[in-house]
Amino acid sequence: MAISLGELAVRFGCELRGDPATLVDSVAALGHAHGRSITFLANSKHRKELELTQAAAVILDRKNADSSRVQVLIHENPYATYARIAATLHPLPTRAPGVHPSAIVAANACIDASAYVGPLTVIEEGVTIGARAVIGPHCVLEAGVVVEEDVRLVSRVTLCRGVAIGARTLLHTGVVIGTDGFGFAPERGGAWLKVPQVGSVRVGPDVEIGANTTVDRGAIEDTVIEEGVKLDNQIQIAHNVHVGAHTAMAACVGIAGSVNIGKRCMIGGAVGISGHLSIADDVVVTGLSMVSHTINQAGVYSSGIPTEEARKWRRTVARFKRWRTVEERLAALERAIHAPPRARQEEDDD
Amino acid sequence: MAISLGELAVRFGCELRGDPATLVDSVAALGHAHGRSITFLANSKHRKELELTQAAAVILDRKNADSSRVQVLIHENPYATYARIAATLHPLPTRAPGVHPSAIVAANACIDASAYVGPLTVIEEGVTIGARAVIGPHCVLEAGVVVEEDVRLVSRVTLCRGVAIGARTLLHTGVVIGTDGFGFAPERGGAWLKVPQVGSVRVGPDVEIGANTTVDRGAIEDTVIEEGVKLDNQIQIAHNVHVGAHTAMAACVGIAGSVNIGKRCMIGGAVGISGHLSIADDVVVTGLSMVSHTINQAGVYSSGIPTEEARKWRRTVARFKRWRTVEERLAALERAIHAPPRARQEEDDD
Amino acid sequence: MAISLGELAVRFGCELRGDPATLVDSVAALGHAHGRSITFLANSKHRKELELTQAAAVILDRKNADSSRVQVLIHENPYATYARIAATLHPLPTRAPGVHPSAIVAANACIDASAYVGPLTVIEEGVTIGARAVIGPHCVLEAGVVVEEDVRLVSRVTLCRGVAIGARTLLHTGVVIGTDGFGFAPERGGAWLKVPQVGSVRVGPDVEIGANTTVDRGAIEDTVIEEGVKLDNQIQIAHNVHVGAHTAMAACVGIAGSVNIGKRCMIGGAVGISGHLSIADDVVVTGLSMVSHTINQAGVYSSGIPTEEARKWRRTVARFKRWRTVEERLAALERAIHAPPRARQEEDDD
Repeated sequence: MAISLGELAVRFGCELRGDPATLVDSVAALGHAHGRSITFLANSKHRKELELTQAAAVILDRKNADSSRVQVLIHENPYATYARIAATLHPLPTRAPGVHPSAIVAANACIDASAYVGPLTVIEEGVTIGARAVIGPHCVLEAGVVVEEDVRLVSRVTLCRGVAIGARTLLHTGVVIGTDGFGFAPERGGAWLKVPQVGSVRVGPDVEIGANTTVDRGAIEDTVIEEGVKLDNQIQIAHNVHVGAHTAMAACVGIAGSVNIGKRCMIGGAVGISGHLSIADDVVVTGLSMVSHTINQAGVYSSGIPTEEARKWRRTVARFKRWRTVEERLAALERAIHAPPRARQEEDDD
Repeated sequence: MAISLGELAVRFGCELRGDPATLVDSVAALGHAHGRSITFLANSKHRKELELTQAAAVILDRKNADSSRVQVLIHENPYATYARIAATLHPLPTRAPGVHPSAIVAANACIDASAYVGPLTVIEEGVTIGARAVIGPHCVLEAGVVVEEDVRLVSRVTLCRGVAIGARTLLHTGVVIGTDGFGFAPERGGAWLKVPQVGSVRVGPDVEIGANTTVDRGAIEDTVIEEGVKLDNQIQIAHNVHVGAHTAMAACVGIAGSVNIGKRCMIGGAVGISGHLSIADDVVVTGLSMVSHTINQAGVYSSGIPTEEARKWRRTVARFKRWRTVEERLAALERAIHAPPRARQEEDDD
Repeated sequence: MAISLGELAVRFGCELRGDPATLVDSVAALGHAHGRSITFLANSKHRKELELTQAAAVILDRKNADSSRVQVLIHENPYATYARIAATLHPLPTRAPGVHPSAIVAANACIDASAYVGPLTVIEEGVTIGARAVIGPHCVLEAGVVVEEDVRLVSRVTLCRGVAIGARTLLHTGVVIGTDGFGFAPERGGAWLKVPQVGSVRVGPDVEIGANTTVDRGAIEDTVIEEGVKLDNQIQIAHNVHVGAHTAMAACVGIAGSVNIGKRCMIGGAVGISGHLSIADDVVVTGLSMVSHTINQAGVYSSGIPTEEARKWRRTVARFKRWRTVEERLAALERAIHAPPRARQEEDDD
């Protein structure tokens, strides 16, 4: 598909400095763009690449507009405008409505006539699928699942019994929503008795969930993912977690049971969050941190320690573990030189 | 389904304080219970909610029994009793025996007449499936797999060649048992040669394994998961690991090859365990810890560091990395004030 | 299958000390070998077990050859020779060429006549499958995927649109290659706008990727996995990552976007690597480390802290967090005893 810069400017509310008749047919990175591609500059630190780009045009904001030697589309949010233009130039393949003959569909499932159900997908009793939903191959929608309009399940998505998915939500390959939470009662002798997980999962509209991410059903009440939440791949959300609207999490995050996460949070990759705590709105947690206490204040939180050369690191850890000795030597010195007496740090013997 | 408190008391060995004819039809959380639901109190710190509950009845132990204003079922293990009553009031859907016509079943597979095989499941040569087993949709049971009685594979479970699954074990969606271990021999020039993984996996009875968890087959001998083990979602168990009976692991744990874990251990979420080490019986490891040495003693072990505000954390890490300087300054002071001479801490120069 | 020591010696270039007519039919561990099995010694620290082995023969290097009481095959790389012999004695099941009738194959897919396509696999428009490739059950190959000769997809592998897989590459159950990268543009009010992921993934020849590992497609350019790379289970590779040839990663590693990893690196289990950084050739990162800065030098890098008993650990962390106090007390002492004045460590107030 080719489209003119003039039409892009009108459609996406940009100021055009260039020839409205110029056609573009693809997006490209600043440094790899060619004659008919359009690119963008969202971060001034890439301005050097801007000078060398071979793109037909570049999307940028007003303050960088004069640095371009090629045609420009000016918008206050160049990255979002790029996203919209990319979606226009590179549309996803569409699916004609209908149910593939190899799908296994319960007689009383209610599938909108405009929806698509792909090959080898299993739709159980009482499932409802909304208008224009696209259910890819190898999905399982267990009994009573409700999928609203324009939802897209890419492939091999499993929605367990009774799960509800909001409009326009996108679930990638391997996602499992509504699997049993990890609940066991200890019995005499060390054995564990399974606690039935009778809650469900409610996923809001405009959510996106990445490949192989799992969301457990609630133990009694529901697990809830609010509108606009974005979850990357291989995240684990335990039972009765509540994720507030527009919160984004990078890959490999693990969240234990009954955690309450606020709105517009950003959780870095591989963060672990302990059970039964709360995180306020607008909290950022950097990657690989351990959140083991409630966070009441918006702000940025960390606990990961960067690598160093391994021999050096071993000495760093050894010093870390003899810290007590340092404090004791320090206290001894303070006594010895008659420094103003100081309350000894509280210290259990260990 | 509705059931009387009198019948619940008899069936689960409780003392009833209330009207045996009262009917309940569901379980509920203390704070959300309504007229015909039953709830429980397993932890005295929720006693305040007990005073406000609208439940028909509450399950609790003798010492909390007098605090309830509603009817009570008294049992020394209220949580386990709750679990049994929940399973009674909210039974899982059952499957009539038989093989779905869309399943692909090898001619010489041996499937008990009381078992169920769901749609689009693949059963290869020589597989044995025991009485009342329920194999959900989209599973693959490779050649020679043995599944004992009352096993349940929820959906999309893969059992690789020759894997054996004990009675009553429950495997959730996306589980892979018996995939190749990560074994490669280094060759000249940096290339890796695959080492065939000729062992298998034996999973005991009464095990539960969560969604998208993977268990590797042994390199030569088998990987073993003993009876009653409970594994949460997205856990990785490498080749030749041995997990002792009734050990429980929270989500996202990773265990390297040939680790030997004792009985009744509890491994917190996202813990990592290095290869070729042993963990004694009754060890607890808290979430996000790194176990890189054998643990010979029962007890609780940790190494995760909680988050703090990010700017503060950066300074904490910087101090951590200049610890050597602190020890040197301390030694200099000790010399300067003629403190009793003290053996200098051994220290390589770095 | 049984094979003589004489034939093994010839086929794999070993010196035989023993009877060339001795037959072996299986591999075994040193300590569990029986009469007709062959075993190996790759590490001198297992030499004690060598003295007790009941194997028919053992593969080892010249310097350990005299320690064996059983027959020996001598090779400078015993582990690699073991791997080759194990592959000979325990061949994988083969598949006769052809497409299973339950597979769903687009009319214009191009499948080599010597390839195998398993039951219930979906092959979309324009897919190309090379000679002798084996595509197991429940795979999805989306439109335009190219799979070269001798590739093996064990089962339930998803290759998203346009992904290319090099010759002899082996992908295990649950692998997803080419799912959307995690790209969103922030909009006013905190909502996120999806950024189309228009790049693809190129996987080189002789790669192996473990169960449930996910590799994201590039945002604009491609994500690249070079030849001979070995990835364990449950790894997450984000968009536009480049992994150099023969690099190996243990399970549960997470790599953020646009990371460039060199050749022959070894990344330990559960390592996290932050976005937009580079790692040189021949870097080793030990398990559970956090890589948050570029590594320019070959070498070994770490940051994980081993567990200790939990009460002790809590005190260790408390000391860690009052480090600032230690430095202040030290500075006060230095002033008090008129130690040679020393530049105060730079320190923001906190």
